[in-house]
Amino acid sequence: MEINRLSDVVKSWLYEAGEMVLEALNAPLKADEKSSRKDIVTNVDKEIEQFFVSKIIEQFPEDRIIGEEGASRNHDNDTQRTWLIDPIDGTLNFYKQKDYFCLMIAIEQEQGDSLGFIYELMRDEMLWGGPKVGVYLNDKRVSMVVDQPLRDGLININSGMVINNRYNAQQIIKQSLGIRMVGCAGIAIKEVVLGKQVAYMSYLQPWDYAAGRILAESVGIVVAAIDEEQLTLTKRQVVVFATPATYQEIRKIKEL
Amino acid sequence: MEINRLSDVVKSWLYEAGEMVLEALNAPLKADEKSSRKDIVTNVDKEIEQFFVSKIIEQFPEDRIIGEEGASRNHDNDTQRTWLIDPIDGTLNFYKQKDYFCLMIAIEQEQGDSLGFIYELMRDEMLWGGPKVGVYLNDKRVSMVVDQPLRDGLININSGMVINNRYNAQQIIKQSLGIRMVGCAGIAIKEVVLGKQVAYMSYLQPWDYAAGRILAESVGIVVAAIDEEQLTLTKRQVVVFATPATYQEIRKIKEL
Repeated sequence: MEINRLSDVVKSWLYEAGEMVLEALNAPLKADEKSSRKDIVTNVDKEIEQFFVSKIIEQFPEDRIIGEEGASRNHDNDTQRTWLIDPIDGTLNFYKQKDYFCLMIAIEQEQGDSLGFIYELMRDEMLWGGPKVGVYLNDKRVSMVVDQPLRDGLININSGMVINNRYNAQQIIKQSLGIRMVGCAGIAIKEVVLGKQVAYMSYLQPWDYAAGRILAESVGIVVAAIDEEQLTLTKRQVVVFATPATYQEIRKIKEL
Repeated sequence: MEINRLSDVVKSWLYEAGEMVLEALNAPLKADEKSSRKDIVTNVDKEIEQFFVSKIIEQFPEDRIIGEEGASRNHDNDTQRTWLIDPIDGTLNFYKQKDYFCLMIAIEQEQGDSLGFIYELMRDEMLWGGPKVGVYLNDKRVSMVVDQPLRDGLININSGMVINNRYNAQQIIKQSLGIRMVGCAGIAIKEVVLGKQVAYMSYLQPWDYAAGRILAESVGIVVAAIDEEQLTLTKRQVVVFATPATYQEIRKIKEL
């Protein structure tokens, strides 16, 4: 399928899923704990993941699938395409605030054909695109990022890192203009892609950052694993999204 | 002027000011430092404050006025009504993100006639009302707050307090579901009023919290100075907005 047609198809699924989520918000949500009382999954996360999986299987039965809520398919195939799904990113926000969450899909492909989608439903803002097609906020083209240094920008760092001063986070904050915490990786990455903030750093799973990475790299943002040679898309890592100038500063400050 | 008529007048000023702000966002903003590079004022803050002041003087020449950007009028008069204006709350967000800021007006009056207005322009959400008229988000009535305990809620605490563990903030965070930081007092207070978060604590000036206090108290939220007997509306204080249950827990934890 041609890449522009594919992006239209995925956006139509996201809009349809968005309607399902809005509908679900009218009824009481059912939440279960995963690893702790702060790490939950709701009936809606599962339903939306299943919705996306069924759509993918119907149209692209050979493709590999990885989903936050356990979806996994065709990992032994010699397939060219992998889908990473985070049906509701920011589930705690979704459950407690009914706001500040997003739906995310990444399509990993060769030769610049990857696509990322971050849909912030409550603002009706779809950030989508990839290296070949460019990045858009709804219908508006997103510019290449302005390479702002740390001292001129706001940053978003995981609260545990800040409190425990991992990677010298408190010094990073001090050198920036200030810290913001939204509790949703997709929204935090969206702010960096849109140039509103100069960096985001957190412990992230592949489905938390896969779509964001495709979008961010397409507008000139550095995406890297701070402790490791590279991002693997197979495990939880400490991931930094930053403007090139800010990324160099964060690397220096973390070694102090 | 009758209170419902007065609230309609103030809302019309806020909507008109909102149009002016959107217009101003199309041109480069001019920012000056106030107390530090993280504490700025833009040409728009000043223009919008002047706009509100001129409207108030035109219609209510006897009233007392206090504005963030220096507006001050009739403080020696024996007037019954005081206006507190924060033309752009979250100026750093406004300047760097063009988002996550609000326009705020408080009208302090006797006998339950006070009114508060928090206008989050980029979401077109006007939170307004008071003890006598009730609280509304645009046209929808806001319910009395559900008295959620700290462990069931998200909280928002000033970043400096978190890093320096003032008031045992790190323990408060640990006992909550998680921390969020938006960098705008008005939006943080709005989240507590709407039941999305259970507490907000920060160093605040009178214009930062005056409108929010009127709205919050009208839906059953506790608003208090953590170090002092009472809020004075005359100086910077550490102010807590919280559900009654969460407020009691914060008071206990801060003494540990």
